[in-house]
Amino acid sequence: MPDNVREAFDKPPGRVSLAAMTKLSKRIRGLTAGTGDGWSIHRRAVRLRAQGMPVIDLTVGEPDVRTDPEILSAMDAAARGGHTGYSAIPGTDALRDAIAARVEERTGVRTARGNVLVTPGGQSALFSALMAATDPGAEVLFPDPFYATYPGTIRAASAAPVRVPTRASGGFQPAEAFLRAGLTDRTSAMLVNSPNNPTGAVYSRATFDAIARVARDADLWLISDEVYDTQVWSGDHLSPRALPDMADRTLVVGSMSKSHAMTGSRVGWLIGPETAIDRIADLSTHTTYGIPGFVQDAALHALSLGRAFEERIAAPFRRRRDACLARLAGQQVVGVIPSGGAMYVMLDIRATGLPGLDFATRLLDHHHVAVMPGESFGDAAAGHVRVALTRPDHELLAAIDTIVALAGKMIP
Amino acid sequence: MPDNVREAFDKPPGRVSLAAMTKLSKRIRGLTAGTGDGWSIHRRAVRLRAQGMPVIDLTVGEPDVRTDPEILSAMDAAARGGHTGYSAIPGTDALRDAIAARVEERTGVRTARGNVLVTPGGQSALFSALMAATDPGAEVLFPDPFYATYPGTIRAASAAPVRVPTRASGGFQPAEAFLRAGLTDRTSAMLVNSPNNPTGAVYSRATFDAIARVARDADLWLISDEVYDTQVWSGDHLSPRALPDMADRTLVVGSMSKSHAMTGSRVGWLIGPETAIDRIADLSTHTTYGIPGFVQDAALHALSLGRAFEERIAAPFRRRRDACLARLAGQQVVGVIPSGGAMYVMLDIRATGLPGLDFATRLLDHHHVAVMPGESFGDAAAGHVRVALTRPDHELLAAIDTIVALAGKMIP
Ligand SMILES: Cc1ncc(COP(=O)(O)O)c(C=O)c1O
Ligand SMILES: Cc1ncc(COP(=O)(O)O)c(C=O)c1O
Repeated sequence: MPDNVREAFDKPPGRVSLAAMTKLSKRIRGLTAGTGDGWSIHRRAVRLRAQGMPVIDLTVGEPDVRTDPEILSAMDAAARGGHTGYSAIPGTDALRDAIAARVEERTGVRTARGNVLVTPGGQSALFSALMAATDPGAEVLFPDPFYATYPGTIRAASAAPVRVPTRASGGFQPAEAFLRAGLTDRTSAMLVNSPNNPTGAVYSRATFDAIARVARDADLWLISDEVYDTQVWSGDHLSPRALPDMADRTLVVGSMSKSHAMTGSRVGWLIGPETAIDRIADLSTHTTYGIPGFVQDAALHALSLGRAFEERIAAPFRRRRDACLARLAGQQVVGVIPSGGAMYVMLDIRATGLPGLDFATRLLDHHHVAVMPGESFGDAAAGHVRVALTRPDHELLAAIDTIVALAGKMIP
Repeated sequence: MPDNVREAFDKPPGRVSLAAMTKLSKRIRGLTAGTGDGWSIHRRAVRLRAQGMPVIDLTVGEPDVRTDPEILSAMDAAARGGHTGYSAIPGTDALRDAIAARVEERTGVRTARGNVLVTPGGQSALFSALMAATDPGAEVLFPDPFYATYPGTIRAASAAPVRVPTRASGGFQPAEAFLRAGLTDRTSAMLVNSPNNPTGAVYSRATFDAIARVARDADLWLISDEVYDTQVWSGDHLSPRALPDMADRTLVVGSMSKSHAMTGSRVGWLIGPETAIDRIADLSTHTTYGIPGFVQDAALHALSLGRAFEERIAAPFRRRRDACLARLAGQQVVGVIPSGGAMYVMLDIRATGLPGLDFATRLLDHHHVAVMPGESFGDAAAGHVRVALTRPDHELLAAIDTIVALAGKMIP
């Protein structure tokens, strides 16, 4: 694997001037060291829209519907009913039970209240899992491309991010040999994400078998980010916690952000062995002191709406993904990595010879369409752009046409 | 200072069996190492009440009123109005501005939006401040007795807690010589809390001058936990950020939990130099990803109710504190450390010869009154019990009578 993706955990920061900040901790100065600035596209799209420009913004990984009024009513009722004091830190019994039942139903793995910690969103579950699975100086393997917060979250835990390259030609599935090449005696965890942001990849059973083999052989924690578990476009969601001998070493990150269109409520969970969850709840006492009781009651109500509700929230993404692939089917200009899940489609624009950031910049400046440059998500997605399926179908398809037209013009 | 209060940051855990958990990180296994288990009294009180026993529970540091319906209406309106998506991570502009204005008004220190980070409660602000002020292996000084989460929060940041003893006879104000005795070349921060939980102490100007001198001389961050800033029973709240040359090295922890009876909403803040706040907001991106927009709008509404509302929430504690001191004035059995602020009174029961935990256990078992043993808050509060002023006046005064009567019987 290339040298430049292995970083010492005390690598000097890239972005901020040392002189101005002598006294802040090294770890906090270096959190976002070395990441590209693809988010500039997103920020500029937001600014242009605010100025009245009709930008089609496909940068954002957030459902384009608001939280259902029925869920908000449950929240209001809970708050007015008096659930406004400190709430149980691992989560209310009722919510932990409901999450355990959902996880058990979807994965077939026995899951009890003691296996569940309620967290303020999937991001907090990720951070907590990393704090539990690493000590300062440990290394954490994860496939590249990756969700943008991964390297910083690993660094926030004073551990070192180690990227494992994947290939567009292999559908961005990590290969066992590449995973093994990333191991050292400091590796203590592996972090994987299927369905995947940004690639839309859904890992195959063979990929997960390889991941599990490596985790068992090297005695690693496997942190499995499954926040897109309701967005699998064919077959069922597969959780590596269900593989042989994996439940004891797997920490599953879940969230209601995407499955229930509750991004702003900040509610998610971590699933793991009871002893681990017990210790991580103790960490929560010291980092967040739990989440609001009224939000937990809202989440409980949302879960009670069952699978039909989750399917209703996922339906537009499935429809838009199908429509995008159909629209792209006839052309040869832009490569398509067939999305198996999640609310994204990756387009290969390498034929244009442009880096993703340059292509995305032209697309925004001249055609008012905003997409994320692949480079924002790591080296393996260079020359790609990520299209979030988070705008109405007609806007999305118009944007796809624009992308193909622009790429066509750029090809030498 | 005694040896036993200095801990290596990789001290083996006290509570959990190593064998069962070989693979969890050392830091997470050791978070609550070595702390006494005074919380057993609290847990038992809750259980007994649930069984129908008329226990007067004075263990809990939480206002005995629920969040005001007016604030809940603002939250509901914001949620229904569509503030349910990802919100700005440092906090909404409006809320940051309102917090800045409140801090500036109360302390006289110029405070702008860029100095404010909105956090999910004061506890999260504490953790974030410690992550910014320390690197793994650094030491953090704090006065003993202390709020129960302090050692674990410092350990969660992979730093080492170093306690500075204070004396009941000195009103639990930390002495400069004791602070200096705690310094080493690994000390990177000092954490203080006035008005103080558990002692009720409000630090004098002289105490703060000494703290500031030590911070400046040793080039430390000062983390000032001011979550009880509305509960000062005579004079004004003093923030060390207002002292000469301190604004650049002080991180102030604030919270709406106690000032606005919003414990369950999980909303607080961190105030500091803009460069530091900017970096700590980046940490928030990786730990919590912000707090709900509808909670921020509720907090904004609560702040708009102004000082009169804060005084209304604080009034019962002021009244009960006065009533307790009056009730205790005539007797010699129990020592009283006159509370200058916060919702607590410390009682010295050393004349009974019993440790706080034994006294509290008898009090609960035989007289159905629950108070926290001083030992739960460090060595310096041994032989004391902390009475939270969080029950109606008549219950509280009945409990005070019971405590005095029991202590009277125990004195040899
Ligand atoms: C792969 C992945 N993991 C985790 C998250 C965190 O989501 P949340 O904290 O809202 O649950 C996201 C959000 O975009 C994501 O894409
Ligand atoms: C001294 C002190 N600091 C911080 C906190 C944390 O409060 P919160 O996280 O609810 O803002 C508390 C709560 O009891 C406290 O007593």
